[in-house]
Amino acid sequence: MSYKANDPSLKSWVSVPENSDFPIQNLPYGIFSTKEKSPRAGVAIGDHILDLTEIQSAQLLNDLELPDRVFDRPVLNDFMDLGKEVTVPVRERIAELLNRDNQELQGNDQLREKALIPQAEATMHLPIRVGDYTDFYSSESHATNVGTMFRDPENALLPNWKHIPVGYHGRASSIVISGTPLHRPKGQTIEPDAKQPDFGPSKRVDFELEMAFITCGGNKLGDSISTKEAEKYIFGFTIFNDWSARDIQKWEYVPLGPFLAKNFGSSMSPWIVTYEALEPFKVAGPKQDPEVLPYLKFEGNYHFDVELEVAIAPKESTEKVVTHSNFKHMYWNVAQQLAHHTINGCNINTGDVYASGTISGPKEGAFGSMLEIAWKGTKPVKMSDGTERKFINDHDTVIMRGHGLKNGVRIGFGEVKTEILPAK
Amino acid sequence: MSYKANDPSLKSWVSVPENSDFPIQNLPYGIFSTKEKSPRAGVAIGDHILDLTEIQSAQLLNDLELPDRVFDRPVLNDFMDLGKEVTVPVRERIAELLNRDNQELQGNDQLREKALIPQAEATMHLPIRVGDYTDFYSSESHATNVGTMFRDPENALLPNWKHIPVGYHGRASSIVISGTPLHRPKGQTIEPDAKQPDFGPSKRVDFELEMAFITCGGNKLGDSISTKEAEKYIFGFTIFNDWSARDIQKWEYVPLGPFLAKNFGSSMSPWIVTYEALEPFKVAGPKQDPEVLPYLKFEGNYHFDVELEVAIAPKESTEKVVTHSNFKHMYWNVAQQLAHHTINGCNINTGDVYASGTISGPKEGAFGSMLEIAWKGTKPVKMSDGTERKFINDHDTVIMRGHGLKNGVRIGFGEVKTEILPAK
Repeated sequence: MSYKANDPSLKSWVSVPENSDFPIQNLPYGIFSTKEKSPRAGVAIGDHILDLTEIQSAQLLNDLELPDRVFDRPVLNDFMDLGKEVTVPVRERIAELLNRDNQELQGNDQLREKALIPQAEATMHLPIRVGDYTDFYSSESHATNVGTMFRDPENALLPNWKHIPVGYHGRASSIVISGTPLHRPKGQTIEPDAKQPDFGPSKRVDFELEMAFITCGGNKLGDSISTKEAEKYIFGFTIFNDWSARDIQKWEYVPLGPFLAKNFGSSMSPWIVTYEALEPFKVAGPKQDPEVLPYLKFEGNYHFDVELEVAIAPKESTEKVVTHSNFKHMYWNVAQQLAHHTINGCNINTGDVYASGTISGPKEGAFGSMLEIAWKGTKPVKMSDGTERKFINDHDTVIMRGHGLKNGVRIGFGEVKTEILPAK
Repeated sequence: MSYKANDPSLKSWVSVPENSDFPIQNLPYGIFSTKEKSPRAGVAIGDHILDLTEIQSAQLLNDLELPDRVFDRPVLNDFMDLGKEVTVPVRERIAELLNRDNQELQGNDQLREKALIPQAEATMHLPIRVGDYTDFYSSESHATNVGTMFRDPENALLPNWKHIPVGYHGRASSIVISGTPLHRPKGQTIEPDAKQPDFGPSKRVDFELEMAFITCGGNKLGDSISTKEAEKYIFGFTIFNDWSARDIQKWEYVPLGPFLAKNFGSSMSPWIVTYEALEPFKVAGPKQDPEVLPYLKFEGNYHFDVELEVAIAPKESTEKVVTHSNFKHMYWNVAQQLAHHTINGCNINTGDVYASGTISGPKEGAFGSMLEIAWKGTKPVKMSDGTERKFINDHDTVIMRGHGLKNGVRIGFGEVKTEILPAK
């Protein structure tokens, strides 16, 4: 599909700094509040937010089949629930309003003043009421690295891995927005060869560099969504830090999977970049061998060329970038993930979150977790202040960023930034 | 704690048939609709439902700090969210109104007529908007049976099992109410020694006999709930059928746990029996050896003597009871489950569901799944129509029931009844 709003030649009358994540071709949705007004929906443009409640009140979004005050809500769910028949034209209309040739908003001093809010004056909020949260495990390099470290380098991937986009259910309640600090979790761990577990703060808190997609609409329980239909249900993407306590996980995860090692918190970037804005960044994925079952076959590209990086900033020190990866380093794509998730009739809903699993590139320097970067603690990473890290220390802040760049257009995600506080 | 509403000598002016699950000492909450009126909250009494919207409108629940029309909602979440300071006195007041000595409702012909609805004329609805759903694995006999069948009879329990109330996250979206048929899931399975998985309808659809508790209120992310505080957060219980596709699970569950084997549907009984109504049925659990970590220690009893049974009715045949178990056959209790769930700071909310895991008693005849009852297919079970079952066939209806019985008072759960339809 091609969208007018993606045209690289478009320019906005709102000033967009060089290297901004938010040119007119992006227009990601978020929920923000200001000192004066409670949380509501907006789109990012340059260093500003366009307040969609003001735009709708001013009758600039008429004829788009929008319910009254649909943006005047603390989450985007009601808007997303309208489906792409509505949300895609809304993005196109916003691009039109922000286009330098358009005077409807640009020429209305009073409205412009009210509707354009500096991001620096806004507080961002979790943009969705999360229904269910699923975490996949879809990067071959990550699964191979973990299998090599903990099992057998010769058989690093488990037998099901190339047949199934392996996934599991995570905790929806503890998904938080960028900027929300998290306490180091306490829990049970066990020393090698010990008979009894210990209890205390995790010693191996780790980030996992992931992307997440968020669904709009859904299927009825019992129905399935094909790979072909999948994109109709994918509203957009965020960067996602799937925090993990490696030592807690190791002891608890057999046989039913990770639980307390994960559910102390997962962090999400505040802006949902639409599926449509990422359209130009679609690329082919790896050849899948062995051949996948028919319900996992697909036509077209569902991988995305989005550069990702992770930095760590110790308390009172500058950040150090510890990895560069890319969302294209996935074996299973989003269409396959959604088709697999629903092949048994599982129903999905607006506001459900699906994280990719740790995105590791094939080479050192592109790994998506400290477990892999510091290779199980054998290769500590030097920070800006000279200290070393095998995992994440108290008061470290982990920052993830991502963007696609093509034809001079940079579609960015902003960042997800989280400080780890000491255990409570 | 003792509650006036639990007094065995109480009798209602509403007729309660012998062996009814719903005497005046129970008063479970549900959501129902009638031909005339949309879903709203009620309590079960005998064969009737007391419409709480009518009772509140008639000013009979004044002075209880209830928000206006709090029962006139399609789910109980807003009511439950008020906390036990409010919900416990409401149950006491309802018991007072239904007491044969009380004339406030009994003596008001017009109101009584409107407020008492025969259950036969009502449709029940899922009573809560489910936040997160967690499934535990807390019955020692079940875990031992599974470990014996699939691993090693000598080491049937995994090393973590007696230290951790093992649990994992399940799918909230596909929790359905009793009476909702479910389609047999399709998915990947693999034959022993095969190199490639097959695809098709599951051949091993199984029930899991569980109880679930539902929380009211919650902790802030980062805080924990102690075993002592746990009961403040447990609103009540239902019977829960955690449907499982054994063949799909076997292939998919390593290393991150069950996913499509479970999320095609989980079935819940319609009435939430309050924690307070179950108070008289508290019993001691088994001695826990090895000693548990301090955060899992508790005082008092948090096991419940609730008799459970499962019946299977093939299409056009009568039901056959295939097992008798009891909720007391748990190793880990509900206070320990909640303390464990939050020890890492994971936040819980009103409307979250926590299933017990399959409840198997220690002996044959008390197992909680077909996997165990038919012992991996080696001991098929005869149905009323003469056919045999190793697992569940298309058009079989599985019915679970439960009740406590003490001092002549029967506190029952009604039933959860689900037909398995052919794969779509």
